[in-house]
This record gives sequence, structure tokens and C-alpha cells, in this order.
Amino acid sequence: LQPSAIITLTTDFGTRDAYVAAMKGVILTINPAARIVDISHEVTPGHISEAAYLLREVLPCFPVGTIHTVVVDPGVGGPRRGLVVKTPDGFCVGPDNGVLAPALKNGAQTLAYELLNTVFFRQPVSATFHGRDIFAPTAGHLSLGCLPADLGPRVHDPVILPSLEPLVQAGRVAGRIVHIDRFGNLITNIHRRHLAQLASTAERLVRCGRWSVSGLARTYSDGVEGQLLALVGSSGFLEIAVNRGQASDRIRQDVPAPLGLTVEVLAP
Amino acid sequence: LQPSAIITLTTDFGTRDAYVAAMKGVILTINPAARIVDISHEVTPGHISEAAYLLREVLPCFPVGTIHTVVVDPGVGGPRRGLVVKTPDGFCVGPDNGVLAPALKNGAQTLAYELLNTVFFRQPVSATFHGRDIFAPTAGHLSLGCLPADLGPRVHDPVILPSLEPLVQAGRVAGRIVHIDRFGNLITNIHRRHLAQLASTAERLVRCGRWSVSGLARTYSDGVEGQLLALVGSSGFLEIAVNRGQASDRIRQDVPAPLGLTVEVLAP
Amino acid sequence: LQPSAIITLTTDFGTRDAYVAAMKGVILTINPAARIVDISHEVTPGHISEAAYLLREVLPCFPVGTIHTVVVDPGVGGPRRGLVVKTPDGFCVGPDNGVLAPALKNGAQTLAYELLNTVFFRQPVSATFHGRDIFAPTAGHLSLGCLPADLGPRVHDPVILPSLEPLVQAGRVAGRIVHIDRFGNLITNIHRRHLAQLASTAERLVRCGRWSVSGLARTYSDGVEGQLLALVGSSGFLEIAVNRGQASDRIRQDVPAPLGLTVEVLAP
Repeated sequence: LQPSAIITLTTDFGTRDAYVAAMKGVILTINPAARIVDISHEVTPGHISEAAYLLREVLPCFPVGTIHTVVVDPGVGGPRRGLVVKTPDGFCVGPDNGVLAPALKNGAQTLAYELLNTVFFRQPVSATFHGRDIFAPTAGHLSLGCLPADLGPRVHDPVILPSLEPLVQAGRVAGRIVHIDRFGNLITNIHRRHLAQLASTAERLVRCGRWSVSGLARTYSDGVEGQLLALVGSSGFLEIAVNRGQASDRIRQDVPAPLGLTVEVLAP
Repeated sequence: LQPSAIITLTTDFGTRDAYVAAMKGVILTINPAARIVDISHEVTPGHISEAAYLLREVLPCFPVGTIHTVVVDPGVGGPRRGLVVKTPDGFCVGPDNGVLAPALKNGAQTLAYELLNTVFFRQPVSATFHGRDIFAPTAGHLSLGCLPADLGPRVHDPVILPSLEPLVQAGRVAGRIVHIDRFGNLITNIHRRHLAQLASTAERLVRCGRWSVSGLARTYSDGVEGQLLALVGSSGFLEIAVNRGQASDRIRQDVPAPLGLTVEVLAP
Repeated sequence: LQPSAIITLTTDFGTRDAYVAAMKGVILTINPAARIVDISHEVTPGHISEAAYLLREVLPCFPVGTIHTVVVDPGVGGPRRGLVVKTPDGFCVGPDNGVLAPALKNGAQTLAYELLNTVFFRQPVSATFHGRDIFAPTAGHLSLGCLPADLGPRVHDPVILPSLEPLVQAGRVAGRIVHIDRFGNLITNIHRRHLAQLASTAERLVRCGRWSVSGLARTYSDGVEGQLLALVGSSGFLEIAVNRGQASDRIRQDVPAPLGLTVEVLAP
């Protein structure tokens, strides 16, 4: 890695407090040339699967060698391990609670290590802010060329929940809503490749709660204003949207907390 | 341009989702030395004139050669063109829907080109996220020295709405509220130079809805707490403010949606 | 200082408007290699002690030579002075209204200067946006090696309010809530070193309004869900928290505006 390596930060710390800035200061103290990129600091506090969703979204967009730091860590100070995961594309650093799951799916070339070598920690290590005291220093040292094996021993059983995979059956894919974006689009875990496993000539029917949409739109502006749409979004996943509206507002009339709601695609 | 060229981002994507980060990753994959600066990602979704307002604000503050990327793009995936505008000060990249209007006012040295050369796009190009797939890669390639003419053909009729110009008459300037800032200040499109066209010795009267203010204050702390003020703000435009209060809160008692409301300045 | 010096920004400007971006553009026009880090732009508008709190939090995390710029400036355009403070660790720039107080506690090696040399200002200087016209240019020039003494004369009576120190008595420390973070934790100005002055073998009792907590927890996940906790947080200050809940929500049932509320620690 070059000293100017890219380090990304994904947290549930918000941007009102000084927590994210403290992490950046610690990184820059170790490697003043590190280039820090914010992914999001507005993960719902403690929401592991949302952080994992964001990491999955950005992994394919960053250059090889990028160090992704994910600190959504409701168990901080408890027995959960800290990890660095080395993949063919770079590194991911964070607690071993599932937030790094998207990086752990890359097979034999992916190796996880437990962060146990206290030489690389900021001292004294607090019980409540491992983002500043363990994960940020780890990212900083990795950016200077430190080897993952120097940080601690191999881990062979990292936590890979939450499962983001839908259920694919003959004529049916059953997934769920895993994210609601700023535009109110309901994003599912059903990928284009899952849809391709349905009979391709059939008209697909997308069902979600009391709603159903026939066929897939191409863009958010298809159809008329206010029309409910299903489409494959920019990352290849099925979304439910409303032309010039917020699908989330509409579904909340029926389902106040739509995250996790089942979405079915049928090819009758 | 140097490889370390500055690229700014203005979007309506918010900072909760991974959309902005995806654009940054794409830029850094093309040019790892690019220096990315966020202008705002909190443009009201789809609000073209607000994005144009922000671009107008920051254009004079950045160094020559800066590449401004503006992605407020309600027509993404439809027939609207993508543009790069070359000005004496640098480049602006975004959809041809009016967001680049402030850059298009610079006269003969300003040239617009349509983004048609797919060699410079991220593949596959999605139908819904040209920020990541077209505009971010364009900014990245421009920062490496790519010429606008390599990106596509000249465009001679770029969209220059919305008009930000007020109406200037004898003894009267009529403009409108174009932005409400975080402090509740109501910012108009009436510039110091428009006011200068009114008889300069007269006491000016500023009228907005049921309100009227006589004379111009110099700072937000002029007068007494709670006092309504009119002043020329830091970018040279007339604002209506309240000493230690929020002018927006007060006007909303009369006008729930004050954006666009007429503001008159009279020199009787 | 190197041309690539780090400049941090703390303001109450929010991130919706172009104000912060204008400051960044001004800095980068002066020093294109400056590395700008956002601390927070979500300080409650005009809230000086909150800005000072954030500065105190981040000072120990950044490398020597960092230039911290703090613009929470309700008196902008009035008679308050602009300052640069040179400390052994770097520089702090901002209005002389107390926001720089944490930097001013370092004793004899800390020197303050008034920003009076207009050569270093952005012209014309507006009456309402010294962040862009005075403080950002000052930070930019400092990052290029400009000496504080070149910026203006020594100041021997900088404003050092607000006092962040608690009252320490025999068997009792009386402080107050100085910050509420995103997680709803109530952070006090009572430091671990103040607690150490209480009889160390006694069981401490923390009282705040109608609440009282016996003993100190180690992490936010101590005890059972919903349990009220007192603990020493990651910066060494006493906090009141709720396991998997928001202490701020609970206290607001009794005290709608808990900032400033007295917190006592007793060692009976």
C-alpha cells in the first residue's frame, strides 16, 4: 500500500458529535497522508444489517487496496472480537458482529484476523470507543503497510450474519426489504441474477404487503406521477418506488416499520 | 490540470445512503489523487433551482481548474442530455436540466459538450444512477487532463433555466426568495448591483408578503433581539433576517411555503 | 508546517447550505494542498460552549501542527475580535468569544494574536461571513507557514468563558451536563481526575435531577436493557446513559432542556 491509501469510514455515530472527527484525527496522526472518505455516519444506531448493506454497496466502487472501516458496534466493551478481513480487493476493519459479512463472502482468498496486538491500539483503550482506540489505529497502520498477520491470529469462524440472500424457488423468489433510501425507495435483497432464474418469458409480478406491481420499469420516471413501480436499481437489486413520490410513505400507511418486510416475485 | 485536481460534488442524495460514497469511489478508482470536496448533498430532492443557487454561491470561491459536479437529476434515464461545461474558471459536469445555469452565463469563452462518448462511462451504465456511472467518471477523467471535446459533441442550446434575474424598474426592484438557509434567513435573487440602480439617496423599503422593512442593516445583530432586518448578505444578495431569530419561522405563519415568494425593494 | 497541513473546521453552519463549502474553496485557493477535515457543522446555532466542548474533544486526537478553525460566531460583524491561538500542538483560529477556550488553557507556551492584518483577508470582507473572509484565509495562510505574529498584535486577555470546570468539595463533586450526544448520552464536565479526589473506597452515588445511580458501569451494555448507568466515557468524563436506550429521552420527561443541568457525585 501507498502512504496515500484510501480509508473509508462507515459508522452510526452521526456527524453532530466529535466521534467521527476523533477517528480521523487518530488515523492522520498515524498516517498524515491517508485519504479518508466518509461512506455514511447515519446508520441507524446499532443496526448491523444496515451497515452491512452499505458496505456491500460500496465495495465494488473503490480502488483495490482500499481499507474499509465499519464501526457499528452495539457490543463495544463486551466479549465480541475486533477483526481485519483481507480480501483480494483490500481490507475491512470492524467488530466481529456481522457488519463485515459482505467482505467475508469472497472465498479462499479472504482471510480474517483478530485484533489482539495491543501495540497497534491507541492507549489507553477506552471501554466504550473502540472506533477511536482500536479500529481507527488499525486502519492507519494498515495504510502504512502493516500486515494483517501482525495484528493478531487468524479467525476461522467470523460472524457472517445477517444473511442477505433471498429464497429462490420454481416460479418464485422471496426476499425482503433491506434498506429504505432518502428518496423513499424500498430496496430488496433480490438481485437481477435471482430474477433471471425465473422463467424469463413470463410477466413478473412483484408483491409486497397489500401491493402488487406487474412488470419491471426501467427508470423512476416511467409511468405517470404517483405510479407504483418495481425496477432493478443501480446496484442490481429489485426496488419498489413511486414516480416522483416516496414509496416508503405509502407503505407506512399499512406497515409502520417496513424494514424486513417480505417481497415476492412471481412468474406465473 | 494536475492529477490532484479538485472535484466538488453537489447532489440531492443525502448522506445517509451510499450514493455519494459510490461516486467518490468511482472518481478515486480513475484518479486516486483527486481531491473531492462536498458542497451539499441536501438539495431538496429534484429541486433544480436550489442546486443552481448553490453552484452560483461556490463558483467564485474555488481555485481555477476546479471541476464542479452537480447531480440533481429528476429526469435520469430519460432523454435529457449529460453535459460538461468548460469555463475560464474550470469545468461543470451534470445533467442538462438547468443545474449548470450559473456556469453558462460566462459568454464566449464558455463551451458546452454533450457526454456521449461511452468509453468514459462506468460500465454497465444503469438507468437510474448516472451520478455514479456517467458524471463521476467524467469528473475523474477531466481531472486527469481529458479534453471536453473528447467526451462528446458541442451543444449550442444548453438549458439555462431557472432564471435567477429580478425585474428592475424605475424606483422598484422585484425579485423573489430563492433560498432559505439554516439560520432561517430568506435569501433573494436581488443583488447589490440591482439595488444600486435605485436612486441611491432614497430610503429603501423592502416588502415581502405582509412584511416591510425600512432601510438596510449591516449585520444580523443590528437592532434589538427579534427585530426584522433586511441586509445585503455575504454573497451580495439581499436577505431578510431576524436578529437572533429565524425569519423563516415568522414568515411561515403567513406563507407556509415561502420559496419563490416575491420580494420588492422600493425607493419612493 | 508542510503545505499539506491539516485544517479542521467546526461551525454551526450545517451542511445544507454552501457556507462550509465556500470556506473550503477559499482555503484551497490559498493552499491547494491543504487537507481539510470536518469536525462538526451541526453545533446548535450560536452555542459557544457546545463548540468549545467539541474542540476540547478533538484537540488530543490530531497530529501536532493541525490548524483548528472554529466558527460559531453570533457576534459576527460586531466589535468582537478575531483570534489565532498558537499552542505547543498547533493553531486554533476563530472569534474571541470563548469558542477557543480549550486551547487557551495550555499556559505559558500558548500565545494569542488578533487578526488585524487585512492583507490576509479575502476581499471584500463581508459584514456577515467572517468564516469565509477572515478565518478560512487565516487557516490557509497558516498552513503555508505564515507566522501568527504576522497576522496581528498579541492579545493578553482572550475570552476564556465558558468555564468547563466542576466544583470539587470534600465528599462531593458538582458539575453539569455539557453535551448530549447522538446516542442520548448525557455528558458532564466531571472528569475521571475529579472523581479520583473523592474517597476512593467509597461507593459513589451519581445524582441528576430526580435520578440517582449507585456505582459506575464500565460499558453501555452493562446491566439489563433499559437500565440507567453512570460511567466514565471515552474522553474521561462522567456520562449518564441507558443500556440500549436514550438517557436524554428519559430525562426530558422531567427536564425539557437538560443542557446545563447539575450533576452531583457523592462519596458518602
